[in-house]
Amino acid sequence: MSGLLEKEIQDAQEAVTKQGDTVRSLKASLKDGKAEKAEVDAAIQKLAELKLALEAKQKEYEKTTGKVSAQSKEALRAALAGVLERRMFYIPSFKIYGSVAGFYDYGPPGCAIKQNMTQTWRNHFVLEENMLEVECPAVTPEIVLKASGHVDRFTDFMVTDVATGECFRADHLLEGHLEALLEDKKNPVSPEKAREIRELLASVGELKQDSMAAALQEYDVRAPGTGNAISPPFPFNLMFKTSIGPKGDLVGYLRPETAQGIFVNFRDLLYYNGGKLPFAAAQIGNSYRNEISPRAGLLRVREFTQAEIEHFVNGADKSHPKFASVAGLQPLLYSRALQMGEEKKAQPMSLGEAVEKGIIANQTLAYFIGRTWLFFIKVGVNPERMRFRQHLQHEMAHYATDCWDGEVETTYGWVECVGLADRSAYDLKAHTAMSKIDLTAFEKFPEPRMEEVVKVVPNNKELGAVFKKDQKVVKEALEALDECSAMELKSKLDAGETAKVSASTGQSFEIKPGMVEIKKVTEKVTGKTYTPSVIEPSFGIGRIMYCMFEHSYYTREGDETRAVMGFKPVVAPTKATVFPLVQKPALNDLAAKISRDLTAAGLSNIIDTTGNTIGKRYARTDEIGVPFAVTVDFVSVDGDGSVTLRERDSMAQVRVPQSEVASVIRDLVDDRTSWADVAAKYPAQKAQADDE
Amino acid sequence: MSGLLEKEIQDAQEAVTKQGDTVRSLKASLKDGKAEKAEVDAAIQKLAELKLALEAKQKEYEKTTGKVSAQSKEALRAALAGVLERRMFYIPSFKIYGSVAGFYDYGPPGCAIKQNMTQTWRNHFVLEENMLEVECPAVTPEIVLKASGHVDRFTDFMVTDVATGECFRADHLLEGHLEALLEDKKNPVSPEKAREIRELLASVGELKQDSMAAALQEYDVRAPGTGNAISPPFPFNLMFKTSIGPKGDLVGYLRPETAQGIFVNFRDLLYYNGGKLPFAAAQIGNSYRNEISPRAGLLRVREFTQAEIEHFVNGADKSHPKFASVAGLQPLLYSRALQMGEEKKAQPMSLGEAVEKGIIANQTLAYFIGRTWLFFIKVGVNPERMRFRQHLQHEMAHYATDCWDGEVETTYGWVECVGLADRSAYDLKAHTAMSKIDLTAFEKFPEPRMEEVVKVVPNNKELGAVFKKDQKVVKEALEALDECSAMELKSKLDAGETAKVSASTGQSFEIKPGMVEIKKVTEKVTGKTYTPSVIEPSFGIGRIMYCMFEHSYYTREGDETRAVMGFKPVVAPTKATVFPLVQKPALNDLAAKISRDLTAAGLSNIIDTTGNTIGKRYARTDEIGVPFAVTVDFVSVDGDGSVTLRERDSMAQVRVPQSEVASVIRDLVDDRTSWADVAAKYPAQKAQADDE
Repeated sequence: MSGLLEKEIQDAQEAVTKQGDTVRSLKASLKDGKAEKAEVDAAIQKLAELKLALEAKQKEYEKTTGKVSAQSKEALRAALAGVLERRMFYIPSFKIYGSVAGFYDYGPPGCAIKQNMTQTWRNHFVLEENMLEVECPAVTPEIVLKASGHVDRFTDFMVTDVATGECFRADHLLEGHLEALLEDKKNPVSPEKAREIRELLASVGELKQDSMAAALQEYDVRAPGTGNAISPPFPFNLMFKTSIGPKGDLVGYLRPETAQGIFVNFRDLLYYNGGKLPFAAAQIGNSYRNEISPRAGLLRVREFTQAEIEHFVNGADKSHPKFASVAGLQPLLYSRALQMGEEKKAQPMSLGEAVEKGIIANQTLAYFIGRTWLFFIKVGVNPERMRFRQHLQHEMAHYATDCWDGEVETTYGWVECVGLADRSAYDLKAHTAMSKIDLTAFEKFPEPRMEEVVKVVPNNKELGAVFKKDQKVVKEALEALDECSAMELKSKLDAGETAKVSASTGQSFEIKPGMVEIKKVTEKVTGKTYTPSVIEPSFGIGRIMYCMFEHSYYTREGDETRAVMGFKPVVAPTKATVFPLVQKPALNDLAAKISRDLTAAGLSNIIDTTGNTIGKRYARTDEIGVPFAVTVDFVSVDGDGSVTLRERDSMAQVRVPQSEVASVIRDLVDDRTSWADVAAKYPAQKAQADDE
Repeated sequence: MSGLLEKEIQDAQEAVTKQGDTVRSLKASLKDGKAEKAEVDAAIQKLAELKLALEAKQKEYEKTTGKVSAQSKEALRAALAGVLERRMFYIPSFKIYGSVAGFYDYGPPGCAIKQNMTQTWRNHFVLEENMLEVECPAVTPEIVLKASGHVDRFTDFMVTDVATGECFRADHLLEGHLEALLEDKKNPVSPEKAREIRELLASVGELKQDSMAAALQEYDVRAPGTGNAISPPFPFNLMFKTSIGPKGDLVGYLRPETAQGIFVNFRDLLYYNGGKLPFAAAQIGNSYRNEISPRAGLLRVREFTQAEIEHFVNGADKSHPKFASVAGLQPLLYSRALQMGEEKKAQPMSLGEAVEKGIIANQTLAYFIGRTWLFFIKVGVNPERMRFRQHLQHEMAHYATDCWDGEVETTYGWVECVGLADRSAYDLKAHTAMSKIDLTAFEKFPEPRMEEVVKVVPNNKELGAVFKKDQKVVKEALEALDECSAMELKSKLDAGETAKVSASTGQSFEIKPGMVEIKKVTEKVTGKTYTPSVIEPSFGIGRIMYCMFEHSYYTREGDETRAVMGFKPVVAPTKATVFPLVQKPALNDLAAKISRDLTAAGLSNIIDTTGNTIGKRYARTDEIGVPFAVTVDFVSVDGDGSVTLRERDSMAQVRVPQSEVASVIRDLVDDRTSWADVAAKYPAQKAQADDE
């Protein structure tokens, strides 16, 4: 039975491919007048029907065999991609030159959604918290990224086909190979082997170079396609490199994240904020990663928009004054314990409880998890298909205190869209070390306190005698010792030993007893200098958009040829369409007036005066996710002046006075009123228009 | 007299420099608690006073000597730069690493102004004309920029100091040298020489490599600073180069303009627009130019935001349906004739007249000049200090039909902020030639017509006999001839001559009579295929911002220590401040409520509850250009509930009911009402607050 179905699926797929070719050639003919637009539209319609027939077969296959076919996910993805590309949400860049993997252009509706999404982000985070927004260049001199560690460590392991030179990501190859072994029904692996493979699979992302080499060799992984041997894995830096200025001696990179621009400005931002902490800075901008083999559409691209927040806070107190406002939220949390446990499933838990039980490290991190969850819901991600996954210990950088990824479920699996990390004071310390510029903050105590402090008093005479011209350097090195190091030095010297001290010049000096006096004294202290900790929520806008596209796409029961993008009004590229019911000057004029009212209210809108039936016109706007439609008929002109207002998802219609329609839609878009309220307030209209 | 004044100016400058150092060191002390904020603020105040004293001296010098001193321009620039940097409108990037020339970061108010400006641009152009907005990557494969000509020709001439290797822009060096010669009072040049130098100065920008070399040699131009000899000039490509993908064999560049992303998408955009022309596409995004020696702050940077429009139109009809709406505008036009004439001064002229007289090439170009003028006025550029300068014939590319630069007068002279060019069909043809993809449009005639067309019928037998394996190439070359070339060939062959024909392969073939039949026939034609012309308005957002900053900066008579940024409400980073008159819970609560009302109305605002006097608080907000201030006093709480609303530039104050204040400000910001209307409607309040 399922064999027969598989054949049918194959046939259906071929029909889709063939019709796709027909559409393409018709489009070309349209250009030189050899085909009519109607002909092309009909062919596109036919293509959509064939795709649905394919989908139906795949669903049947799933029911019969009890497993989700890879084709089905691909079918959903293909159907969605069809809408997204045909309506120019986004398309591969440089198409006329054959495109380059990992680059996409946003067309008009994609552009509008992206603007709406970043503006919503700005309102939700930057304005709400009075964050300091900055905009820094993408071209970055090497020293900044040397300090941050990107020059040395921002790498993926790469292997090459020894015969063709083709490049692959080592972890992707190994994963694919291991998964194929597990799924191989003809030569099943032993249960022990399967367990070993599964364990290896779970850690592929964290393998060091030698373990990766060993694993690739042990499983005899070969180049896809050719089956050739592959080179040993080697690190490939993912930054795009360039050269700044005419001499060619200043190396620059395209920033791999926007965060560093904020860190290097910490001093000015702190001054701007009147020297007060905590405060947050934010940046929305493009970042660049020269991925080895980009795939999965918008999910892994080489140029992408990030929205990043750096919340600077005294590490000694990471409570958050507004935490109570999110403590009751219950997002799906996938803690370390749940990941290591039997069920391996995220559970809803209130953020208050998570902080109390120590599952989330502190209030500030939890506050941003809560705000992030609200943001995702606001822009149209299904909260039941979103979770926060905690990094396992070995996934985190050594300096990080706690990290959670905001992940969204799609046909590609769980996709990381946001990273929320408590990075301690690592970043500012790294830039201080490289730039020699003090990036600390000063906490002034409400009242001066008497405190025991460690005093380091160098013996100038001794130092001069021994170190001669280096005296000053040694003196500064001693005075720069932190309390711990000073007390350690003291204990050595007290024991009559010598000890080495490093200076900022890179030199090291041997200190003997008598050269310095170290003592604890009690003195009046007005405050304390410290390097602030950073809590970093970092958003990938394109990934969120793609996940939102998948969650928004649906077809109506009984009308499966009609794709609907159920965008939330706040992100929808067009908020309303205006239709004259039929082509009459009086109706067209009123439609134009209503369109002007909508524009004046800041609502993007389109008038559709094509001769198409209302049903067809709705279908066209459903596909680009227009949430509201206004239809102007003779009652609007000759009767009581009311127009029909239709809501996309319920397809419900009400009669609204024309003078009120713009403000009703404005309130709906701004979430000041709900459709239920509108439906209760205005008389319903029978939805006859849809049947035409 | 003027000698004494010059000495005084010098002293005043030294005082400014010294006080600048004091401010810097106090700021450092502030950080570790060794200085108070008030102390720093006082020092900054003192610095501003010293700057003004310097300015006053310079003005006196100007009056006495009758010439504008370079110092005075520099003083204005320095005073403005002080405000812009201190309030973090923008600062040099990567400051803690010593900065890199040509890169700037926007701080919070700069970021907000940039967003307001791009959003105003989007509303004014994209929404108003239903343009198709796109967003394309900055990283661009070489072939795209090879086609556009940037790989071969996007260069500046560079020279190097032969001893130190330092790099300079040849034209800048030559200009500086020639200007110094003209201004040298000790060794004045002869009147003939002066004329020769002035003529050379006027053409420095257009010199070819050999003329540049000759000029540099003739005038013995040397490296600044060292006085060393310089190398001959050589072209330096201004694009940042990188490599895409892991193999390193795909060369990429950071785009030097956003326009190419639109051109390569022409086919998809035309389809999106239902195959109809004219239409315009637009893009706002960052572009990159690796300038040899960036200078002049935001005016010449290496990474900058462009807003570009490509208006595609049939070259046969460049009229514009909305031209009447701008025909009566009278911007300053600096036509070719005025530039070549005696007075060398722009004149106001109506756009209708300019098109009628053939001064501006066509309605569409003139329409965009008019819309651009309105945009500049809208964002706060002084229209009396803005002109449209037509390119002289030798400044234009060979394919361009007409070009006008929108220029704004600043302390740096006239700055090009916008280029408006009729580029004919050059761009699309260039991409067709490189990609072999047809980038034409089809104009369907309302009715099919009988038209005389040229038919080219190759004689296959003859061609085969003579050209053998090249037969196909020759045949295609003949069939690809346009009507003109075909008729030219026909006349030669008819006269018994031979003629050369070039093929797309680059080969050239000798055609003899009998090899091809060329004839005019009359046939039914349904429409015409053509490559659209492009009219391109291209805006540099950072440059417009800087010009706007200079035009917005002023000080009040009798209160010259107080800088005011007179931003138009639509671009102002903060629309309103809210002050409780004194520190009382009831007043603070009401202020907080009004702030919430403003936020709900989409108006960015700040509450100032510092204990400062109202006068000081106004001064702080004047400096960041907040247009409206709301003061809450006891009348607001206990009396009639009205608050004081103050307009920044007139300093006039009115009493407005608190419930109306947000909507009044919203209307003022959106230009739905004027301050005059508000002042007429609400009772005035004596401006006592400013004197406190």
